[in-house]
Formats: sequence, C-alpha cells, structure tokens
Amino acid sequence: MIYADYNGSAPLLPCVKEYLKKRIDSDLYANPNAIHSMGQKIHSGIEKCRDVIAHAVGCYPDQIIFNSGSSEGISQILFSCLEYAPSTKKMIVTSSIEHAVIPSALKYYEERRGFKIEKVHVNQNGLIDLDSLKKILSQHQSSIALVTIMAANNETGVIQPINEISKLCQEHGILFFSDTTQVIGKGTFHFNEMGLDFAVCSGHKVGALSGSGFVIAKDPTLLKPYIFGSHQEKGLRGGTQHYLGIETLAIALDDFIKNEKRLKQLLEARQEFESKLKNQLPLTHIIGGNALRLPGTSLISYPGIHGQAIQIELESNNIFVTTSAACSDNQPETSHVLKAMGIGDEVGRGVIRLSLSHHQQMADYHEILCALVSAIKKLEKIKSF
Amino acid sequence: MIYADYNGSAPLLPCVKEYLKKRIDSDLYANPNAIHSMGQKIHSGIEKCRDVIAHAVGCYPDQIIFNSGSSEGISQILFSCLEYAPSTKKMIVTSSIEHAVIPSALKYYEERRGFKIEKVHVNQNGLIDLDSLKKILSQHQSSIALVTIMAANNETGVIQPINEISKLCQEHGILFFSDTTQVIGKGTFHFNEMGLDFAVCSGHKVGALSGSGFVIAKDPTLLKPYIFGSHQEKGLRGGTQHYLGIETLAIALDDFIKNEKRLKQLLEARQEFESKLKNQLPLTHIIGGNALRLPGTSLISYPGIHGQAIQIELESNNIFVTTSAACSDNQPETSHVLKAMGIGDEVGRGVIRLSLSHHQQMADYHEILCALVSAIKKLEKIKSF
Repeated sequence: MIYADYNGSAPLLPCVKEYLKKRIDSDLYANPNAIHSMGQKIHSGIEKCRDVIAHAVGCYPDQIIFNSGSSEGISQILFSCLEYAPSTKKMIVTSSIEHAVIPSALKYYEERRGFKIEKVHVNQNGLIDLDSLKKILSQHQSSIALVTIMAANNETGVIQPINEISKLCQEHGILFFSDTTQVIGKGTFHFNEMGLDFAVCSGHKVGALSGSGFVIAKDPTLLKPYIFGSHQEKGLRGGTQHYLGIETLAIALDDFIKNEKRLKQLLEARQEFESKLKNQLPLTHIIGGNALRLPGTSLISYPGIHGQAIQIELESNNIFVTTSAACSDNQPETSHVLKAMGIGDEVGRGVIRLSLSHHQQMADYHEILCALVSAIKKLEKIKSF
Repeated sequence: MIYADYNGSAPLLPCVKEYLKKRIDSDLYANPNAIHSMGQKIHSGIEKCRDVIAHAVGCYPDQIIFNSGSSEGISQILFSCLEYAPSTKKMIVTSSIEHAVIPSALKYYEERRGFKIEKVHVNQNGLIDLDSLKKILSQHQSSIALVTIMAANNETGVIQPINEISKLCQEHGILFFSDTTQVIGKGTFHFNEMGLDFAVCSGHKVGALSGSGFVIAKDPTLLKPYIFGSHQEKGLRGGTQHYLGIETLAIALDDFIKNEKRLKQLLEARQEFESKLKNQLPLTHIIGGNALRLPGTSLISYPGIHGQAIQIELESNNIFVTTSAACSDNQPETSHVLKAMGIGDEVGRGVIRLSLSHHQQMADYHEILCALVSAIKKLEKIKSF
C-alpha cells in the first residue's frame, strides 16, 4: 500500500504510535489545571512539549498557544486582528489561492464587520505577484488591518516567498499572518527568522494526533481568546488542553527536525519521477511545475481524462491519492486555486494530487510511475471530456 | 491509587484503552473528507459513531456536531444565538454559578455587543430560583436572546431542574442552552426528552480522548460556523474531524449507557460515605447536601482547615482530589459558585471536592473515609484560619 495523500492528512508516525501504545497503558490521566500531582505532572509535560516544539519551529515557547488545529488557529487569528482592529483599518489583503477556511472566514468579516477584501493575484506558476502586493500596501498602508497569504498551497505545493512578504509587511507596519499548515513538518520553517506575525499548525498534517495543533504569535498579547474559558494557555485559549495530542505533536515535530535532511532526498526522487513521467507521457502537465514546491507534492493533469478516473485506477493498485484538496474533493470542477492560476477546465478537471512524505521509501515513486503510466494509457482510449 | 477527580477530567476508560491500542496498530489514517476509500472508511466510521452517540444521549444523529469539546461548543452556541440575535433581543439570562467559560464569553457580548446580563439567583442549596426565573422571563420575554443555565455544577454536583427550565423557556418562546458537560456520561440525560435547545459534551470528562466533544442542537440550522472551514460537519464546524477522538466518544458513551445502572450503586455508596463521615466528624459540612447531586460528587468543608491541606494529606495516601474546579484550583479563595450560594470564607476556603465514577470500586469510599477522618483529626490541631 502506498499512501500518497500527506497534504490531506498524515498517518500517525511510527514513533508516535510507539509512544501512544506505552502512554495509553500509563495511569497518567488528569486535568492539567488540577492542583494535585497527577494534574501537575501532565501540566509540566505540556510545558516540556512546548519547549521541544518551539525548538522545532524556531520560536520561543511562550509564542506557542495550543489548540485543536489550523482551522481554529486561523479563526482565532482573524478574530484577534479584525474584530479588534482600529476603526480606520477596514481592509484585508489576501490571495486568491487560500485554503477554504480563509475565504469563508473573510466572508463573515466582509458581510458583518464591513471589511473590504483585496486579493493579490497569482501568476500561472501559482506564485503571488509581489509587485502587485507592494502597490496595494503602499496605496492603502493606513487602512490595512491584516495581510493573510498562505506559505505553501495544499493543492499545488507551490511555496510563496514568505520572507519577502514578511519584509514588505514589516516595512509598512502591517500585521502578516501566513497559513503555514502545509509547511510545518513538510518543508523548511523557522518562525522567528521568517519575520511573520502569526503561523498555524495542525497535528494531523505532521503525523501527530488529530484534533491537536497550535498558533504561533510573534507577540502573543495581540491574540484574543476565541474559545472562551479560564486561564488555560495564559488565558488565550479556554478548554482543557488536548494533552495527549500535544505530547504527540512534540514527538512528531522533534522527529521531523531529526530527519529534515531526508527532504532533499524526497525532492530529488520527486524531480526524477516527474521527469520520467514527462518522458513516458508527453502530455503530462505538472501544475506549478516551474515554481518552488513542497518536496513531496505533484499536482498532475492529463487533459481530457478525469482526475477521479485516474484516482480510481491508482487505488486498484493500492495507491491512495486525491483529486484536489480533501475538503473539496467531492466537487468535480476546477478548483479556485487552479482558476486563480489561469488554468481552464480542460486541465483543471483532470488533476490528481500526489503528496508524499520524507518518511516514505523513495522506491514508492517508481511504483507510482508504473501504475500511473499504465492507468493513463488505459484511460486515454476512453477520454471523457 | 484512588482517582477522585472525575469532574476535573476522567482517565481513559479501560474499554477505550483496549480499543485505542488495537486502533493505533491499524493502518487506517486519512482525511475523512478525502475521496479515496481510506478517507471514506473513516468518514463512514464517524457516521456510525454519530449514530451510537445519538442513541446514548437521546437525540437524532443529525443533531450532533463534533468539535474539540465543551469550551468550543459553548463559544459556538453563544456566538450563534447572540451574534445573530434580532436587534430587539439584547438580554441574556444566566445563573451566578456557571463554569468560567460562560461568564468570560458573556463579558465579551456585554462589552462589545451591548448585551445586558441578568443573573438568576441560586439558593443555599445551589439550586436556581425558578420563581425568579419565571418573573424575568415574563417581564422581559421579547428582549431575551438566550437563557443559559448549567445542568449540573462542576464544583458541588448539584443538578438543576432542567426539564422545568426547558418548559418555562418553551412557554415563553426563548432559546435555552444548558451546559451539560458534567451530566453527560455521569448522570441521567436524554436530550430530546428534556426539551432544551442546545447541549455540549467534552470527551475527556467521559473517559474518551481529550480534544474531542460535540454540540447537540435541537435545530442545527440555528447554529453558525464559528471555527470556519469547508463543508465538514455539514458546514457547521470547519477543520478535519478529530476522528480518533470521535471513535473513543462513541465507545465511552456506549459503555456509559450499558453501565448506567451502576449510577444507583454509586449514589448509595456516596450517601453511606457522607452519612458515616458526618457521624465520625460532626463538623463535616456537605455543600449542596440537601439538593439532588451527581451520584459521585461531594463538596466537603471543614471550617478553619484549608482545602489544600486536606488535599495534600489525602494525596499522601494516594487519593487524588481537588479543592474546587480544576480551572481555578490555584486560587485559594471562596469560589464564585459558593459565594453565590451565600457561603462565607470560613466554609468556602476549606473545601475539597470528591468526584468518583460509576466504574470505581464502591470500597474506594471506605478507603477515602478512613484517610479523610485521619487527615481532619490531624489538621484540626493546627487550624489555619
């Protein structure tokens, strides 16, 4: 079995599984906010995890606020920056390729809080247009409450120039949040070196337990509680902490930095795979093919062949891929990300997404290559659009 | 070891542990929203869990929306009912004994949305005054956006007359939310028979994984997404579902209804324990002692003796209790709940909370009795206030 949907969700890492099996048999379960020693042990465990994670993502421990994952993190960051923005700042700058959470949240702030949304365009490689961003920032400097542009796209894997965007935002004194869900645990990331104001992480994307995650805030005092509660997470996130999730986050991210060098191998294996694929199937269209992408992500299209047909063929070979983002997988149309890149339905409806991990056997790419070539040769005969 | 802090957090149930150990070794990890069969298997597993849980809590499956737990659930319910309330409804009716999430959330709606908060008083037994509630509802019927009164108090265990409150709210056409965190999995609960509009549950209170939980909504169309996202949970809660948490919720709540008859044994054991305690230590003060309480909860005070001193003595006997709510455990003062019951510092600062589960050996109460009596006899000699 080859699981090639890491951008959708990562299976628990082997080291996380081993940890959990021992951890479950322990008797250490309690409320980390309780006064007794069992609670305090769990509490001090959480703080150790915070240190390990801070080291792995390049920030200070007190810049990390644990939560249930990126969708919550994004909702809280937007609430903190927009609900509490000065009344003169009524503009939000974003891109046209963000994950569904961002547009659905921004719609709320547009409709109910009177914000104006300005979208920076992306080019055909899926990269945002820095000149256009520069122009918007200069022109509307005093009215912009927040810039929110993702770090790496979940569908294409294309990596945005976050350091440059951070620099531009800093020069204009504007807060910058980047949805880093696909980068943390999959690519190079160092929060404080990159200069952004807020970042997010989801445990299930990095091989930790689902329902875990965190926000990173350059200045945590800018955050407001969104899930209300008591003094948990310094009063910034109510609710009893998902301590088992936090423990697995620390294990997964520690494992990531220990194996970070494998990213290079993964990138080389992907490049070789894509090059062989294009040789064997000249119609292969790699979306964002000329841009810097996450090491293990390839979004591939064969015009005229439905992505879902390819996905089913691969699955019959025990290879699991998706057609686009998991959260919009059931919509057989060109995604908003591809539309924003100027890609029409002929290419856009034929996509499959492969997303592999640095933990996989590089030989997996060979197996995928064989299965994909044979699937396309079969499906070419019965082109469906 | 006797763990007596179930109102703070429950250890994983033995059946949940067994399930997880097998589950972790499976290869079934994927995004439940993915198109491939692994995602679909997890998705259909979630729907089976929804059925099991619906049966356990007495509602229809589509009335359940999974989330990260009660604090999130409460934040979403208040947001849905208050942010979207007609402009003529600017009053919220609540009690003075709610868990910290409610007052901290209501402060937001008071300060930033102009709501007026009306608190129903509680009597010395910790029961809300139904006559006073009736009067408020009749007087302000057209201006009330929501009534929010908890089902059972986390500190005292006192159970409110939820059916009567539901009936009153229905008669006045006013939405009623009850924080049911302490009742589900610990006491008798049947959502649709009780007539309330919204309820919440936290997995870690019922022996399931932390970071899991759900909202129950009589009419889910009244809910608005608070954690933004795509079409997960019918568009009402963004974010990849915490499917392992959901699976353990189903196991824990199914186990609860299968063992519900043990609640009676637990109640009898607690009654016997309290009666023996009062015999041996005539100064024993059981808070809410005359009210209907959760079967396993006793909040006990020995005026002049600090609760924390008793807690430490019990812990030296390997018995784990708290002094009040976990989330305010570090504050050595009379809690807002006890103050609302008219309890002064002499009693209020001396409390310890025992909260046991129907899964415990009823002999545990005997051991606690011996340790507590010996602790109090020792501490009486060095009264601290």
